[in-house]
Amino acid sequence: MPSLIDPRTLAFQLYDVLDVESLCSRPRFADYSREAFDAVLSSAQGIATEYYLPHQKANDTDEPVVVDGKVVLNPGVKPAFMATAEAGLLAASQDAEVGGMQLPHVVAAAAYAWFDAANVATASYPLLTTGAANLIAAFGSDEQKATWLPPMFAGQFSGTMALTEPDAGSSLADLRTTAVARASSNDYLVTGTKIWISGGEHEITENIVHLVLARIEGAPAGTKGISLFIVPKFLLNADGSAGARNGVVLGGLIHKMGWRGTCSTLLNFGEQGPCVGYLVGEPHKGLTYMFHMMNEARIGVGRAATGMGHAAYHHAVDYAHTRRQGRLPGEKDPSKPPVPIIEHPDVRRMLLEAKANVDGALALILECAMLVDHEQTAPTEEERTAASQLLEVLTPLAKTFPALGCQVAISNAMQVMGGYGYAREYPIEQLFRDNRLNQIHEGTNGIQALDLLGRKVMQNGGACFKALAGRMKATIASCAGGDASVQGMAGELAGALGQWAQCTQGLGAAMAKDPTRALANATVYYDVSARVVVAWLWLRMASVASTKLAGALSDDERDFLQGKMQAARYWFGWELPRIAPDIALLARMDSVTLDTLPAWF
Amino acid sequence: MPSLIDPRTLAFQLYDVLDVESLCSRPRFADYSREAFDAVLSSAQGIATEYYLPHQKANDTDEPVVVDGKVVLNPGVKPAFMATAEAGLLAASQDAEVGGMQLPHVVAAAAYAWFDAANVATASYPLLTTGAANLIAAFGSDEQKATWLPPMFAGQFSGTMALTEPDAGSSLADLRTTAVARASSNDYLVTGTKIWISGGEHEITENIVHLVLARIEGAPAGTKGISLFIVPKFLLNADGSAGARNGVVLGGLIHKMGWRGTCSTLLNFGEQGPCVGYLVGEPHKGLTYMFHMMNEARIGVGRAATGMGHAAYHHAVDYAHTRRQGRLPGEKDPSKPPVPIIEHPDVRRMLLEAKANVDGALALILECAMLVDHEQTAPTEEERTAASQLLEVLTPLAKTFPALGCQVAISNAMQVMGGYGYAREYPIEQLFRDNRLNQIHEGTNGIQALDLLGRKVMQNGGACFKALAGRMKATIASCAGGDASVQGMAGELAGALGQWAQCTQGLGAAMAKDPTRALANATVYYDVSARVVVAWLWLRMASVASTKLAGALSDDERDFLQGKMQAARYWFGWELPRIAPDIALLARMDSVTLDTLPAWF
Repeated sequence: MPSLIDPRTLAFQLYDVLDVESLCSRPRFADYSREAFDAVLSSAQGIATEYYLPHQKANDTDEPVVVDGKVVLNPGVKPAFMATAEAGLLAASQDAEVGGMQLPHVVAAAAYAWFDAANVATASYPLLTTGAANLIAAFGSDEQKATWLPPMFAGQFSGTMALTEPDAGSSLADLRTTAVARASSNDYLVTGTKIWISGGEHEITENIVHLVLARIEGAPAGTKGISLFIVPKFLLNADGSAGARNGVVLGGLIHKMGWRGTCSTLLNFGEQGPCVGYLVGEPHKGLTYMFHMMNEARIGVGRAATGMGHAAYHHAVDYAHTRRQGRLPGEKDPSKPPVPIIEHPDVRRMLLEAKANVDGALALILECAMLVDHEQTAPTEEERTAASQLLEVLTPLAKTFPALGCQVAISNAMQVMGGYGYAREYPIEQLFRDNRLNQIHEGTNGIQALDLLGRKVMQNGGACFKALAGRMKATIASCAGGDASVQGMAGELAGALGQWAQCTQGLGAAMAKDPTRALANATVYYDVSARVVVAWLWLRMASVASTKLAGALSDDERDFLQGKMQAARYWFGWELPRIAPDIALLARMDSVTLDTLPAWF
Repeated sequence: MPSLIDPRTLAFQLYDVLDVESLCSRPRFADYSREAFDAVLSSAQGIATEYYLPHQKANDTDEPVVVDGKVVLNPGVKPAFMATAEAGLLAASQDAEVGGMQLPHVVAAAAYAWFDAANVATASYPLLTTGAANLIAAFGSDEQKATWLPPMFAGQFSGTMALTEPDAGSSLADLRTTAVARASSNDYLVTGTKIWISGGEHEITENIVHLVLARIEGAPAGTKGISLFIVPKFLLNADGSAGARNGVVLGGLIHKMGWRGTCSTLLNFGEQGPCVGYLVGEPHKGLTYMFHMMNEARIGVGRAATGMGHAAYHHAVDYAHTRRQGRLPGEKDPSKPPVPIIEHPDVRRMLLEAKANVDGALALILECAMLVDHEQTAPTEEERTAASQLLEVLTPLAKTFPALGCQVAISNAMQVMGGYGYAREYPIEQLFRDNRLNQIHEGTNGIQALDLLGRKVMQNGGACFKALAGRMKATIASCAGGDASVQGMAGELAGALGQWAQCTQGLGAAMAKDPTRALANATVYYDVSARVVVAWLWLRMASVASTKLAGALSDDERDFLQGKMQAARYWFGWELPRIAPDIALLARMDSVTLDTLPAWF
C-alpha cells in the first residue's frame, strides 16, 4: 500500500517553498514551531490511516440508508469524526478562547488533506461541522457562540450548510425558504425545502446544526433579502443538551455517482410541525456571511480534490513500478522478460502529467491557505490587504484547478492501471467518481470562471490582478542568477504573464461595452489563468528545488528534487504553451458559442 | 425523454455527406435502396427503445451475479439479444449464403449505434457474438462455418473474444495459454487462464463460443507462435445441439466501474477436466486473424462511445431548454423569472463542444464503416486499395477519438445538469462511467497512438498517410466557390494539413535514428491528428450543410443545418488551433517525459 501523500512533498511545500515556520514569529502562532506543526501533520496522517482509510471502500459500497426514518451511516464514520474532534482538529484554526488550536490555516489544510486522500466522504462530516462552526464564530452573537461552538468543536454536534433549493441551485437569488419572526421568543419559524444537503441527517452526533439561508417575510427579492439562520435538529434544553425535536425533517436521500458515504439529503423545514431558527448577525446579510465562508469552502473543495489526486498518483506510480508488460522499442527477443511499465515513455508521460497537476494543485491550495493566515495575522495593514487581494483572485482557481487537474491525474492513474484501474476491486475508480463532484459543488466551474473574469480580476480597477502579477514578477526577478533551467522558465513565465495581462486588459475594456460577449468565454479565460498561475507556482518550486539540489545529501533526496524540477519542466514545456491559441480566441472575443441559437442544438 | 440520437443527423451523415445510396449500384447491395436502409434503421431504433432502453439502468444497479455456479444476467438482456437476432442484425453484413443480410457496414454501424446509445452493456452480447462469428466466417473451415454460424446468427449460441491473460494485457506476445494437439480427434486440449472476458459465462444462450488465442505446444515465443481456437462451453452433439460440458469454467466475475450489465469474467481452461478447442485457419496465424477483426472491434468501440455521447448530448440539450436558473448579465431585476439555462453562454459553450465532438465522432465511425464497404466492394482494385489504406490510418483514431471526445461531451452534459447530472437518479452519470472503459479495452489510448505513429502513418513509405492527405485535399478543393465561411475553413484545414504532414515527415525521419524518442510523444501526435482529421470531417459536413441551407424549406431544417455549420465553426475556431503548441512540441521531439527517471516519481 503506497503512501496517500508523500510527506516529503508536504514538507517541501510547507517549509522550503512557503516558509511556514516564519509564521511562528507572529503572536497568534507563538506557541508553534516546525516540530509542533510536524506533530499535527503526523497525527493527521495517523488518524487518516487508522480511522479514515479502513472504511473508505465500504463507505462507497454500503452507502447510507434510511432505516425506520433514521439515516444509518457506515460504522466507521463516527470513530473517524470523533478521532478528529479529539485531536482538536474541528477547531484547528479557531481562537484559543473558543477552544481552538490557533493552528495556521496552511498547516490545517495540509493536515486535512490526509483525511481527503484517505476517505473524502467521511472527511465531509468534520469539514462541514468546521465550516458551520466558523460561520457562527465569525458572525454569531456571544450567546450563540457560547451555546453552539463548544459541542460542535467537541464532536457532540455536527453541522451542515443548507443553501440549495430544488429551484435555486447556482442562482441563490431565487431561494424561497422563508422565516417568520416570533417576537415572543426572539426567534423565527422557518418553512421551505433544501436539497443536496450533505450530512443533513444521521445519528453520529446527538444534534445537527443546520446553517440555513432563508428569506425573512417581507424581505426584498434577490440576493439582498437573504438571511442566515441556525436551525438545529433538536432544540436545546436549558443545560445545552439536545431536547425536543425541531421541525426539520428528512425528505429523502439522493444517490450520487461518488462521494457516497456522505449522505446527501432533501430536507423539509416546517412541513411537519414548527421549525425554529435563530438569526445569525443582521437580517438580509446572510449571503454576505455565507460567501465569507464560501471562500474557505471553495479552498476546501480544492484541497479535497488535491488529496484524492495525490492518492491516485501514488497508487499508479506503485503499480507502474511493479507491473511488467511489454518490451521497449528495438527489443525483438520475446524470450526476454517484460519490463516494468514505468519504462514505457507513455506511462511516464501520464505519471508526469499527473504529478505536475497534483503537486501544482497542492501548491495552489497551500498558497491560498497561507494567504488566509496573512490576511488575518500579517503585521502590517498593507500586507493584510495584499493577502486579501491575492486570495480574492486565487480562490476561484483554487476551487477549479485542483478539481480539473486532479481529475486528469486520476484518469491518468486509471489509464496506467488499465483494466485494473477501471475495476472496483482496485481503488482508482472510486477516486475517479468521487472527485468529479468537485467541479460541481460549491459553485460550478462555469460559476468560478465568471467570478474570476467578471468580478475578481476586474474589481477595484484590477487591484487583485495587479497584486498577483506583482507577486509573479517578484518570483521571476528572484530567479535571476539561478540555475539556467530555472532562468529559462522565468523568462517563459514573464512572456506568458505579459500576454495574460494584455488579454485581461482587453477583456476589461470590452466588458464596459458588451459584458455578455466579453464574459462569454470566461471558461477559456479560467483555463489560461490556471496555466499561468500554476506555472508561477512551479517556477517557485523549481527555484527552491534547484537550490536544494546543490546541497542534497543522498540519492533519495536528489531523486525527489529532480522529480520536482522535471515536473516544472513539463509544465513549462507542455502545459503553459497551450495558452497561445486560447489567448488568441479571447483576444478576438470569439463569439461562436455565444452566437449559437438555442434552436440550433 | 429526448431521442437518444437525432435520426435527422443519421440521415444527414449517411445520405447527404456519405451518399450511402450510391452503394446500391454495386451487385452486393443491389437489393437495397434508401427506403430499405431506412427500414433497417427504424427497426433498430424500435428495438433499442423497446428492448434495450427499459433495462439500461437496472443493468447497472443489479449487475450480473453468480447463483449456484451460474451467472445470472438482468432478465431484459435475453429478449434484447433475441430481438436483435430475429431482426437479422447478428448477421447484418454477412453474405446471404451464410444467412446474412448483406447490409453495408456503414448502415449496420448506424443501426448498432442505437443499441449502444440505449444500453451499451446489453449491446455487448450481440456485438461480441457478431465479432466471433465474423472471425469464423472469415477464417474458419467450411465445416466450422456450417457448424457454428447458423446457431450464432440465430441467437442460439453467443460468442466471446478471449485474448487477455492476467500477465498478458496490452502485451499479447506474452500470453501463455497452451494447446496440445490430439491427433486422434483432430482437435486440441487447451489449458490456461483468461481474464476480462466479456460475456464469458451466462445462461441467455444454450451455448457460448469462445474464440481463444493460445500457443500450440512447441510454438515459437512472441506473437508469431499464437493460434486461434474455437472453444465452446458445451461440445456439440451429432445434430449440432449443445451436448457435454467442455472444460472451460468460470473462475469469477470482475466488477467494473461501468458497463456493469456485461459480465466480465475470469475463465479457466482445462483446469477442471479437459477443454477441447478447434483450430481456426492455420497454426501460428491467430494474432493476424484476430487483428483482422480487431480493426472492426476498434471501430465498434468508437461506435459505442459515439452512441453514448449522443444520448448524453440530447439529455443535456433537453434539460437546458427546460431548467430555469439565473438571469442574463445586465438583468438586475430579481422579480423577473429566471431564464432557461440554455440562454447562458457557458451552457451553450458546453453543449456546442459536446455537439462538435459527438457529431465528429459519428462522422468518423461512419466514414470508417463505409471504407470497410469500399475495401470489400468498390469496383476497382485501386479504389479498394485506397479504402484499405485509409482504413488503416483512420482505425486508431476511430477507436480513440470517440472515446475521448464523447467523454468530454458526457462530462459537459453532467456539468450542464449540475447536481442532477451527478446523481444516480438521472441518466448521465452512468454514461460517464460506462464510456470511460472505451479508452482502455481493445487497445488503450497509448497503444492506439503508437499504432498510429509507429505503424500506420509510416508503413509502405507513408502510403496510408498520403492517401488520407489526398482525400483531405480533394475535399478542400471541392470547397472552392462555396459559401465564404466554408471557404475560410477549407483554407484553415489546408494550413493545418501542411503542418501535420511536415510534422509527420519529421518524425518519420527521426524514427529511423532514434525510434524511442520519436515515438515518445505518440499520444500528442494522436491528439494533433484527431483535431486535423475531425476538422476535415467537419469541413465536409459544413460544405454539405451550406449547400442544403440554400434550399431549406422550413425553419426546422434551417435550424438543423445552422447547427451543423456552427459546430463546424466551433471546431475550426476552438479545437483546430490548439494543434499549434503541440506541433511545436512534436517538432522539437520534446524529451521531458522520456527523460524522467523512474526514481524521480
